[in-house]
Amino acid sequence: MSSINSILQRSQAAFAVYKKVSGKQKALFLEAIASAIESLGHPLIQTAMQETRLPEVRLVGERGRTCSQLRQFSALVTEGSWVDARIDTALADRAPLPKPDIRKMLVPLGPVVVFGASNFPFAYSTAGVDTCSALAAGCTVVLKAHPAHPQTSELVAQAIQLAIKETGMPDDVFIHVPDSSFETGKALVQHPFTKAVGFTGSFAGGKALFDYAAQRPEPIPVFAEMGSLNPVFILPKALVARSDKVADMYGASITQGVGQFCTKPGLLFGVQSEQLERFKTQLADRLKAIAPATMLHSGIAESYVHNRASALRQAGVTLLAESNAQPLPEQGTPTLAVVRAHDFIQNQQLSEEVFGPYSLLIAADDIHQMKVAAALLPGQLTATIIGEEEELHAFSDLAELLAEKAGRVVINGVPTGVEVCPSMHHGGPFPATTDARFTSVGTDAIKRFVRPVSFQNFPQKLLPDELKDSNPLGIWRLFNNEWKK
Amino acid sequence: MSSINSILQRSQAAFAVYKKVSGKQKALFLEAIASAIESLGHPLIQTAMQETRLPEVRLVGERGRTCSQLRQFSALVTEGSWVDARIDTALADRAPLPKPDIRKMLVPLGPVVVFGASNFPFAYSTAGVDTCSALAAGCTVVLKAHPAHPQTSELVAQAIQLAIKETGMPDDVFIHVPDSSFETGKALVQHPFTKAVGFTGSFAGGKALFDYAAQRPEPIPVFAEMGSLNPVFILPKALVARSDKVADMYGASITQGVGQFCTKPGLLFGVQSEQLERFKTQLADRLKAIAPATMLHSGIAESYVHNRASALRQAGVTLLAESNAQPLPEQGTPTLAVVRAHDFIQNQQLSEEVFGPYSLLIAADDIHQMKVAAALLPGQLTATIIGEEEELHAFSDLAELLAEKAGRVVINGVPTGVEVCPSMHHGGPFPATTDARFTSVGTDAIKRFVRPVSFQNFPQKLLPDELKDSNPLGIWRLFNNEWKK
Repeated sequence: MSSINSILQRSQAAFAVYKKVSGKQKALFLEAIASAIESLGHPLIQTAMQETRLPEVRLVGERGRTCSQLRQFSALVTEGSWVDARIDTALADRAPLPKPDIRKMLVPLGPVVVFGASNFPFAYSTAGVDTCSALAAGCTVVLKAHPAHPQTSELVAQAIQLAIKETGMPDDVFIHVPDSSFETGKALVQHPFTKAVGFTGSFAGGKALFDYAAQRPEPIPVFAEMGSLNPVFILPKALVARSDKVADMYGASITQGVGQFCTKPGLLFGVQSEQLERFKTQLADRLKAIAPATMLHSGIAESYVHNRASALRQAGVTLLAESNAQPLPEQGTPTLAVVRAHDFIQNQQLSEEVFGPYSLLIAADDIHQMKVAAALLPGQLTATIIGEEEELHAFSDLAELLAEKAGRVVINGVPTGVEVCPSMHHGGPFPATTDARFTSVGTDAIKRFVRPVSFQNFPQKLLPDELKDSNPLGIWRLFNNEWKK
Repeated sequence: MSSINSILQRSQAAFAVYKKVSGKQKALFLEAIASAIESLGHPLIQTAMQETRLPEVRLVGERGRTCSQLRQFSALVTEGSWVDARIDTALADRAPLPKPDIRKMLVPLGPVVVFGASNFPFAYSTAGVDTCSALAAGCTVVLKAHPAHPQTSELVAQAIQLAIKETGMPDDVFIHVPDSSFETGKALVQHPFTKAVGFTGSFAGGKALFDYAAQRPEPIPVFAEMGSLNPVFILPKALVARSDKVADMYGASITQGVGQFCTKPGLLFGVQSEQLERFKTQLADRLKAIAPATMLHSGIAESYVHNRASALRQAGVTLLAESNAQPLPEQGTPTLAVVRAHDFIQNQQLSEEVFGPYSLLIAADDIHQMKVAAALLPGQLTATIIGEEEELHAFSDLAELLAEKAGRVVINGVPTGVEVCPSMHHGGPFPATTDARFTSVGTDAIKRFVRPVSFQNFPQKLLPDELKDSNPLGIWRLFNNEWKK
């Protein structure tokens, strides 16, 4: 793996320079990446369409989100307060001992290895949140391209290289590794210069990287988002009041993007009743009416066929509905299955993700059994409750339980459509992610790639600008226990 | 291990209640613990003196620090803004899609297993920072008593039980496990209800716990502080100007508390010169004049004798000075050894901690060689530079390098004496700790035991008080991108 060694040596050498680059310069760099991606124009979208089979409108939207993310991080590091600066000045006369001057801020970890994601060729790949939050933090990035969209990745990497030249960043601040082998990924994670890893993909892939990282002589953090069932709990009165509307929302949410979202609702819980029977029929009708569509790549399509069949073979599981249209090769068929909660509770395999437009409706005998099933669920990115105001209050313990299971709890909505804002947390307890304390959506994603350092008794000139008395950057700081600019 | 199972079941049941206790109630509980510890009076100090051989003045001081920590966390959760609340209200008319109401705050992880530390029988043991930050966060605590001070631990645990009764907390919010076996510790970390681990002790102990936690079906975070060499770099002009004063400071810092501090300076780097020779003699004179003293327990005393002898046997290492007084059994002898940087660089074993009043002075041929040695150091809690203003600037790259190696960089001071304030970071890159992103000193220690949860589209009544529109707790929140009370 001498080439891996040379890659990480280059990344480490670039880090020695890049870690000292100012927030405003990093901001220009991120902004230049966004502009360079936009300048690639329609050929980038066409390449991504060919490689990912995603429709143009989705890819145009995702490119917009990607550039918007780059600009959000650009704004974050331009403003600069994200370093969480804290200053406690000296008290030379304090008894029994004088208090030294201590100042603390966040500093970058070092080279970060990022794995491109298949389901977000822009927003979670080459210049996606992992890359852009690491670069914003002051880390260098080694990007392993996802083998399902190598040309798309190459084009975006060229845009980043252009931005590097334009803004005078060190050449190796970003290194694109188009190698598709598993061994390369493993070697990148194991290299001693690598200080953190970002990954979005399967449980098997993410967990393998986590294990390699934990078993290194020097363990490093891995931020792997590995999948989620995104359970939805539909309370009885909501079905009385608006089962048709709920079926509309969920028919769309389950099949959006051929079900290839980490937040796709994979489990729907209801209490056995006439209204639930009606809802089943309504939701079944929605899914029957939605045509199969081509999945991201042949591997994902094959896995969907295999995992769907395996799920449908489980004891007590019945196929309720599938698309009226026959799928072409590599298309995913919208599918709804049902099972009784009694069978669900006894079969852990039903809590495994089927990535694609598949959802399982679980009919509980009563609310109590629904809660028993909820308590057995593994960690999730999201959990949702559909209910009328009064029943939400009556079963407030369900919302409390779900806040223990998930990183985001939604009421009367769908989990798909992840808003990018300061209050968004995208990261749930294991096995949804390897570290529920950090988000991979929004500007807080920068916190994954930094650590605090205290500077004690430093002369002003030796301090980073963020910590100087004169506050030349004009950032918010906790100064002797008071937030000040 | 059925008893371990029952302990964690009790802790989990208590968590279901305790996680809903308000900040103000938790504050009263922490305050009551501090008062109950103080009410134990002198018998607690006497018990600790017998068990730890630490002098009365040190233990009285440490008890004061422990109660002060409890009160700092009490103030933190009374005030309440630590939950980092963020609110983004809905925009129903936004095109193309309405923006939902999303609110985020930190929530407790669940039961935390804390291991008492031998070298801080109060401040890092039964009611120490790990326990008190976990309780402040809303986690329950299972405390494995350190076998070197079981009676001290039992007395403090009784104080906590008293505080539980007085403030009406669930009985099992804190469970004291006096079992000293290694297997018990392992089983506590491996139990599925355990959600995080706090540990202060040896590298072997901390790394074993880290590995057990990483290998669980559901990996959990381990915050282990495992030791540090705390290298000190003494620049040439400082020795010209004030070698006598530096020798004073370091004679005291190396031997304070019989060298049993995680921040004891274990490596002193200087550049070969007449002044360094003079400094050697001066520091040697200080150490010769300091009497050996009894170490914390026989295991630590034996390890010191063994590790000191092993360090002195390394190629090129010479004993420069030891205390003029002969040590009694189980006492640690102040010791200074020297080695040339050339030999130090070639021998990794010289970068292993000798826990006790031992320090190794490394004589470099020049500043360049000193930096080469610095670059090879493993992660540290602290690193220090002693220098005159002009040479600090001339060698500013050394300070930059040390900020990569350590969690705290000190200029013209000693690393011992860890100030408890918002700007203090106590936690360095591996192997100093298992997670350099978190501190075990100061109120930021609470961040180890929480994770964010987003609440989307919640009715006001179902929201935690911290996130309600009316802000009934009056805390600081990021409200539509603006910090507000």
